[in-house]
Amino acid sequence: MSSVKELAAMAKEASVFLRTVPTEKKNTALNAIADALVSETDRIVSANSDDIKTAEANGMSISMLDRLRLSAERIKGIADSIRYITELDDPVGRVLNRHTRPNGMTITKTAVPMGVIGIIYEARPNVTADAAALCLKAGSAVVLRGGKEAINSNKAIVTVMREAITAAGFPADCICLVSDTSRSSADEMMRLHGLIDLLIPRGGAGLIKAVVENSTVPVIETGVGNCHIYVDSEADVSMAAQLVFNAKCSRPSVCNACETLLVHKDIADKALPAIKQLLDQKQTRIHGCEDTRRILGTDVVPVTEDDYKTEFLDFALAVRVVADFDQAIGHIMQYSSGHSECIVTDNNSTAERFLSCIDAAAVYHNASTRFTDGGEFGLGAEIGISTQKLHARGPMGLEELTSYKYIIRGNGQTR
Amino acid sequence: MSSVKELAAMAKEASVFLRTVPTEKKNTALNAIADALVSETDRIVSANSDDIKTAEANGMSISMLDRLRLSAERIKGIADSIRYITELDDPVGRVLNRHTRPNGMTITKTAVPMGVIGIIYEARPNVTADAAALCLKAGSAVVLRGGKEAINSNKAIVTVMREAITAAGFPADCICLVSDTSRSSADEMMRLHGLIDLLIPRGGAGLIKAVVENSTVPVIETGVGNCHIYVDSEADVSMAAQLVFNAKCSRPSVCNACETLLVHKDIADKALPAIKQLLDQKQTRIHGCEDTRRILGTDVVPVTEDDYKTEFLDFALAVRVVADFDQAIGHIMQYSSGHSECIVTDNNSTAERFLSCIDAAAVYHNASTRFTDGGEFGLGAEIGISTQKLHARGPMGLEELTSYKYIIRGNGQTR
Repeated sequence: MSSVKELAAMAKEASVFLRTVPTEKKNTALNAIADALVSETDRIVSANSDDIKTAEANGMSISMLDRLRLSAERIKGIADSIRYITELDDPVGRVLNRHTRPNGMTITKTAVPMGVIGIIYEARPNVTADAAALCLKAGSAVVLRGGKEAINSNKAIVTVMREAITAAGFPADCICLVSDTSRSSADEMMRLHGLIDLLIPRGGAGLIKAVVENSTVPVIETGVGNCHIYVDSEADVSMAAQLVFNAKCSRPSVCNACETLLVHKDIADKALPAIKQLLDQKQTRIHGCEDTRRILGTDVVPVTEDDYKTEFLDFALAVRVVADFDQAIGHIMQYSSGHSECIVTDNNSTAERFLSCIDAAAVYHNASTRFTDGGEFGLGAEIGISTQKLHARGPMGLEELTSYKYIIRGNGQTR
Repeated sequence: MSSVKELAAMAKEASVFLRTVPTEKKNTALNAIADALVSETDRIVSANSDDIKTAEANGMSISMLDRLRLSAERIKGIADSIRYITELDDPVGRVLNRHTRPNGMTITKTAVPMGVIGIIYEARPNVTADAAALCLKAGSAVVLRGGKEAINSNKAIVTVMREAITAAGFPADCICLVSDTSRSSADEMMRLHGLIDLLIPRGGAGLIKAVVENSTVPVIETGVGNCHIYVDSEADVSMAAQLVFNAKCSRPSVCNACETLLVHKDIADKALPAIKQLLDQKQTRIHGCEDTRRILGTDVVPVTEDDYKTEFLDFALAVRVVADFDQAIGHIMQYSSGHSECIVTDNNSTAERFLSCIDAAAVYHNASTRFTDGGEFGLGAEIGISTQKLHARGPMGLEELTSYKYIIRGNGQTR
């Protein structure tokens, strides 16, 4: 079996091939992958059922089992999303800037592939296919390191993808899977500075923290979303209730769901009951401050400091009544994970202050935080949502998977 | 004395102020810094002479002493370069993209400050002023951690700068200096994930390696330049000689100087003597392969594997005769630090193959690698040259010191 380092070195070699492959050829390979995933559905589902059996025996939760499970329908969905990637513009080769220097040299800043991209993720086998397809379109080789719970599914999917791209004339090592799912294989991957150009962890806060703390490879942190909605004293109460309900309850398990609601004290008596009425439709548990409990009653759980730090990812919401705008800003600055933050107000100048003060990937005025998403932002597909400020922030599409270089053409210029 | 963490927390607080400061006010502060550096020249030179005395007593090399030394003239030069920064466009607030979604929301991708930028560097006190001024113009607070050799100079410069910006209405903590120059203060700084948004090491390969290996804060690697020139079989010999001479000898101590020359075997007999003739003007030591020594004679030192890995930063050059284009590419891929690489050829199709195959920040056809520089690339000022692929590649100017965020304006949209 290959060590992780050998695997990454093979991926690096394959990345040299990918660097100069024309768009049509990449699309041909992507279509071949989509076709093969569908035609090899039985093989993949069978491998997946081995994973499901083990997971059930180990007492995996229902929601985790649901994420792990593949069916013919889900595989068709994965194939469709890969075919969709063929329709997106090729991010490689874009001329970002071009100018001619006084000495006659031309300098062309050009988008180029990242090289080798590593993905460390958990038990979602769809990530295996999605990430490989996005990286291929972006001209990079990928080293995939998924969780042990999905290893049989991942092996089957990667084998099918490698066969498909080989038939399309690509080196199989454009898509590599780390088959050792021990902690040490992830650690080794994080230290492959010089072989892996970018590492993207996808998963829970614990995984992401481990990668950030241990990686010497440049990392993009993704996905932890402790998102706030601030309902200003000049908010439209009915709009506020709709936005909070949508941001909390439309899909609570995702990173752009709202986790804490801040309400200006002058509007709390009116706004909180209206908001609660909608949240109650989904039996949402409210963790409230003293003022919130005074207004909404004692079925509201007393909020703790920890609640303010928590990404509930569930039908649960922390609620705090704030004295003013500055206290709301202060709260968000203290607890925000830099993902998505929202103000609801009819006062545009208050809104603009919020939009310029708040330091997050996405800042909203009168719209739900649930829109922070590659598709909704018009990026097409997305490989994750960056919560850091380097390189890419917010939803990362194909362009964010590329780097650039300067190409200088001269006729003997010296300095 | 403040711990590094407390210092970074103060810088973070100051960064909130900086986030929304208008351009003119930043320029006023920069001019105030420039004026103060000049008017406080005596104080700075006196502090610097303490550093110089210690350094001389410790046997610092002449070239290091030269980098450490400040004079009235040099301080005026620093002040002039700060005044020049006031003339550059403000990188903050640029609208990078704006579109309206079918549901009526507008999404505006806007350049925003990074927040807090950390700089870890060695014994060059000019970096203290340059980096602080660039970060301020880019709207970020800076935490400076220079080498112990320059600590008195740095303290004097930072004190003068803090006084100047305070008088201009800025929080002094926009510019923070770590006064503890022990290894542990640098280590602490590298672990301040969440307080420092970006860390830029400036210095030798050892410093940069230490930061990459130990930092949990996102890092941009700068400056290590193992740069190659490949003289193709169809090169103009006289142009090749001029380019190699310029790239090696115009300033050998810098990162964009050429360190290894690769020459196609079919042109070696003609090209190598012509190149050597120019290099001899600067008594450049040649470390050559067997073929090189056969052609140039035995005063050429036999080249070693280590030479190919070495950034000489001196009048010394490794030279290898290669069998063909592919061997040249292979050599560069193996040893390049991803900084600047050059081909000399009259064959445009060979040149284009080189430009697309080689993975480096700057790839040249028929021009000296010495042009990889913020000023030469038209970026105005530069804080370093990135040799990694994330966020910024090549010379980093003001724009590269910013991040972005998405601002979404709606009227009640839910998903």
